[in-house]
Amino acid sequence: KVIWTVLVTILGYASSLPVGDDSLCTAEELAKYRIIFIGKWSQTAFPKQYPLYRPPAQWSSLLGVTHSSDYSMWKKNEYASNGVRDFAEKGEAWVLMKEIEEAGEKIQSVHGIFSAPAIPSGTGQTSTELEVHPRHPLVSFVVRIVPSPDWFVGIDSLNLCDGDRWMDEVSVDLFPYDAGTDSGFTFSSPNFATIPQDTVTEITCSSPSHPANSFYYPKLKILPPIAQVTMVKLKKSQLGLSAPFINPPAKSNEIIDSVS
Amino acid sequence: KVIWTVLVTILGYASSLPVGDDSLCTAEELAKYRIIFIGKWSQTAFPKQYPLYRPPAQWSSLLGVTHSSDYSMWKKNEYASNGVRDFAEKGEAWVLMKEIEEAGEKIQSVHGIFSAPAIPSGTGQTSTELEVHPRHPLVSFVVRIVPSPDWFVGIDSLNLCDGDRWMDEVSVDLFPYDAGTDSGFTFSSPNFATIPQDTVTEITCSSPSHPANSFYYPKLKILPPIAQVTMVKLKKSQLGLSAPFINPPAKSNEIIDSVS
Repeated sequence: KVIWTVLVTILGYASSLPVGDDSLCTAEELAKYRIIFIGKWSQTAFPKQYPLYRPPAQWSSLLGVTHSSDYSMWKKNEYASNGVRDFAEKGEAWVLMKEIEEAGEKIQSVHGIFSAPAIPSGTGQTSTELEVHPRHPLVSFVVRIVPSPDWFVGIDSLNLCDGDRWMDEVSVDLFPYDAGTDSGFTFSSPNFATIPQDTVTEITCSSPSHPANSFYYPKLKILPPIAQVTMVKLKKSQLGLSAPFINPPAKSNEIIDSVS
Repeated sequence: KVIWTVLVTILGYASSLPVGDDSLCTAEELAKYRIIFIGKWSQTAFPKQYPLYRPPAQWSSLLGVTHSSDYSMWKKNEYASNGVRDFAEKGEAWVLMKEIEEAGEKIQSVHGIFSAPAIPSGTGQTSTELEVHPRHPLVSFVVRIVPSPDWFVGIDSLNLCDGDRWMDEVSVDLFPYDAGTDSGFTFSSPNFATIPQDTVTEITCSSPSHPANSFYYPKLKILPPIAQVTMVKLKKSQLGLSAPFINPPAKSNEIIDSVS
């Protein structure tokens, strides 16, 4: 069998990725991926106002979802949901999880939720597994930048399906976003609600164009990536070798029993 | 069909729960549970030195595992692993995840890892799903108390199998433990390694018996529970209605394909 490998490295705007029409996914099976999130928020790469104490620079839990194009977790230039606002401002996941579950129950647009542990420093990694379905081939997630007013990194509706196949590996550089719900300019700004709420915007080295902005580096053309995410398709023989199912999930008749 | 419901509420020492011999589990199928962790660390219940700022009282991500009796994540009066130390001291999950994966690969003692998002306050809840297997019916998890030197709450090897059945609901009150790796006495004590390392011990209202201890309440007989966990078996019709698999995982032939 010819091994077919695609490595897609997309530098830049996750939300401007070509979101494939998921109705075109004709892959025949579910697929499982290991997702590895790597924090690259070092003092060397981001010296300005780098948070060293109480709290030092770190990343929240990762909260993600696999879904169809009928659901959107967040989108650039659109308003954040209450759940995304709570998560981006406070790392509070509950409302966002409820929003996702509701979308799953009402419009069957969600396949599953996944989460990975927080990273208690600006650099480091965390990991979990996710499962995609031909009718739900899109992946979205958010990770809050801590400390920050309402800043996060994430992926919006990345399609892991390519026609009749699942991609083998996808890597994406991540850049900071502002959820548009808190008007703080710097990592440690006090809480100050943005009223009326603004849309989700990317934070760049020149925007917001104000010297007080923690990511304002007028000498740079673009910010270095503050994080990176890699999704690697698990081979069938690897299924179960890692979270959330470390061992092969038993015999197929047990599985049929459990879902029938 | 007669609905068979057991509600087991165990007040007290999670680690002294009767750990059933998992070889006796003759349930025929996998079972899925929703696990709900509720933080009860309020200033009212725990007024002494309650952390209000930088950071305020909160809970780390929950990191858990389903396993056989050949694996132990942590155990009262035994030494914490390096992974549990890193998690209890810093909320760093990576080493612990690697330890679990290694146990899964080498001695097939682990079925799966699960994690739930952190809770950014002392009270609040988080949730995820877990799957148990007749050969791996035990559940263990840890949640770090933040801030703290190396304190955590958790469950050690709770058996969800009862003979040939899976329990329908289990609720356990949780009390704080000291991982034995950092000698701090109070929530905000500076980092100070315990050398040689001590064993995992429960923290009570009278032990450590020192007025500086953040949980020292000499007028109480026992501490109020600082958290609670509930595991609810998902009915077959509910499978897929919530995380990590919100929708039914497609047709059974697809499942067979994906694990064959």
